[in-house]
Amino acid sequence: MRCDTLTSFMVMDIVREASQYDDAIHFEIGQPDLAPSPKVLSALQEAIGKTAYTESLGLLALRQKIARYYAVTHGVDVPSERIVLTPGTSGAFVIAYALALSKGERLGLSDPSYPCYKNVAQVLDIEPYFMPISKEDSYQLTPLHVKGKGLHALQISSPANPTGNLYDPNTLSALIATCKEEKIAFISDELYHGLTYGTKAHTALEFDKDAYVINGFSKYYCLPGFRLGWVIVPQNKVREAEKLAQNLFICPATLSQYAALEAFDAAHLENVRRVFEERRDYLYGALSPLFSIDAAPEGAFYLWADVSKYTDDSTAFAKKMLEEIHVAVTPGADFGTNQTHLYVRFAYTRDIAHMKEGVARIKKWLGRHLPPKH
Amino acid sequence: MRCDTLTSFMVMDIVREASQYDDAIHFEIGQPDLAPSPKVLSALQEAIGKTAYTESLGLLALRQKIARYYAVTHGVDVPSERIVLTPGTSGAFVIAYALALSKGERLGLSDPSYPCYKNVAQVLDIEPYFMPISKEDSYQLTPLHVKGKGLHALQISSPANPTGNLYDPNTLSALIATCKEEKIAFISDELYHGLTYGTKAHTALEFDKDAYVINGFSKYYCLPGFRLGWVIVPQNKVREAEKLAQNLFICPATLSQYAALEAFDAAHLENVRRVFEERRDYLYGALSPLFSIDAAPEGAFYLWADVSKYTDDSTAFAKKMLEEIHVAVTPGADFGTNQTHLYVRFAYTRDIAHMKEGVARIKKWLGRHLPPKH
Repeated sequence: MRCDTLTSFMVMDIVREASQYDDAIHFEIGQPDLAPSPKVLSALQEAIGKTAYTESLGLLALRQKIARYYAVTHGVDVPSERIVLTPGTSGAFVIAYALALSKGERLGLSDPSYPCYKNVAQVLDIEPYFMPISKEDSYQLTPLHVKGKGLHALQISSPANPTGNLYDPNTLSALIATCKEEKIAFISDELYHGLTYGTKAHTALEFDKDAYVINGFSKYYCLPGFRLGWVIVPQNKVREAEKLAQNLFICPATLSQYAALEAFDAAHLENVRRVFEERRDYLYGALSPLFSIDAAPEGAFYLWADVSKYTDDSTAFAKKMLEEIHVAVTPGADFGTNQTHLYVRFAYTRDIAHMKEGVARIKKWLGRHLPPKH
Repeated sequence: MRCDTLTSFMVMDIVREASQYDDAIHFEIGQPDLAPSPKVLSALQEAIGKTAYTESLGLLALRQKIARYYAVTHGVDVPSERIVLTPGTSGAFVIAYALALSKGERLGLSDPSYPCYKNVAQVLDIEPYFMPISKEDSYQLTPLHVKGKGLHALQISSPANPTGNLYDPNTLSALIATCKEEKIAFISDELYHGLTYGTKAHTALEFDKDAYVINGFSKYYCLPGFRLGWVIVPQNKVREAEKLAQNLFICPATLSQYAALEAFDAAHLENVRRVFEERRDYLYGALSPLFSIDAAPEGAFYLWADVSKYTDDSTAFAKKMLEEIHVAVTPGADFGTNQTHLYVRFAYTRDIAHMKEGVARIKKWLGRHLPPKH
């Protein structure tokens, strides 16, 4: 059956479990706690009463603003007609995969990676094909990973969930060139663009104008509940993308679209970025003495912590930590099978005071109950 | 390729075409023009600032209100855990089909029917199997239609788009019994429930507690842009439905969910129903002398008009009408191939003054350019 091997998106289950505890410390969910720009909330106020559908591709004015963002931020020219607004990036994956892959075809994914990639693929009867990445290759796929694997499309993310890793431009460029040679559609999840620390993320569009590029308003723009994302599709796929959007969505939520017209608020966004950078600095510093962390992550809001000093079963470890000290983290198993039993993911999506309390509990707990194995 | 035989949702293209004309008369789109309950707009106002995700299945309080609606309106007991909130009914079809059908399996659909059914099926690699319905069988499928056809699921809608037809309870009950015998999953689209005139719609749940039942806030509740629907799934499919929702949607738009808590406003809804009933009465009376209309439709807000007196190509007829007199209707071809070249669909989703102007233009145009063929 279609759903037999579908895995749950474990973090959503953990969120529910953690919500039982009034004093829970939340390192589990990849959801910013910061408010969006006040300009967005004013625009929302203005838009109350707009209850009609929009065009299936989404409001043209918003698609034009997104095109402008690519011109200003990355110096690339993206015609607004190639930009399809979707119900979250969740909807964007459905569109990209349905356009790029026929049934039974193979989608390349790194292991670890965002769990919904493989599950969306499976619902669409696409074969996920996993390629292990590790600290040795800085959690980046390279041409060697993808050559001769019979892939029809490759999905990457940068900055990445769960590792917080960024592709460096040389690796990204080489990977894209290989995909072009091998006629592998390139799908780039850029949802964490903007949330980078000490470096800048590159869009796949800088290297390949026919890349599928996915982004949205849930993270950097602090609007997860808006359920509004976008996918940039190749020019020759625009009409098919529109048909898919008409049939699968009709359109994204209207109010979200109107309010998002004000989301590109540079001063507010820079403040968001700075807050997450401070949190990263704090949490990386605080956890490094406890766990093995390969490097300070350069983007997103995740730390990928090696807990093998204490356990060979990070799922049991996370469960015990939640039950005993009410500190929620996401076990590595949510993101794949490649060494993931030795890792947990910390999200730094709460303020430093909250995280300090969590770190203090973890320290005490590790000392009391779980002496290092070695 | 997956998208090769995907048809566009024609009405969305016609909406775009019609929007070129300032003086266009709109009979094309199935979108209510009435305002939602003021209570919904107040709730929306209160909810501004709620930008976080909700649970994947949706707000429990809203699912409980929906459960209460079934208890009060239909006397059936639906545990709220079986109710999954989705991004519009569009999302509900994806969930229902993904749960009920594996790849290559057969979904029974009437011809004519809502075009997205077959297109969603196709994206999921499900085989649509069409069964013709006509005025002779009052546009209802019967046990004879579905027996021995190798169906794995059957999709019906009542009140139906495009015909405005309702299933009578005896036919519905017999059809469901046959599906049970033949182990065909029964999927009932009840989006137009509430919009019935002189009769009452029955939910499939009255006859089969394991039916998949789909409904939403876009029509009767006048909230199309909210993109909020629901699907009731069988008890043993709840966990799989949740996994699908986690992976495909994360959750529906948060603001829509909070505001919809106030959507079950009985006095407002009765007013909506009454307005559409008056419009139906007007339009049925006004168009009956011009076209053949089988019967006054009992539900939804559509009239299925036989235009064969004037043309054998209702698509060309609709195109010409839009170009020459700026009156937009949806050609029958949007809904199937069974005699649909002889039909157009009128939506009565604008006020009577607007429709009067449209009817006046049509009358003049028919008299001048298109004498009856016979």
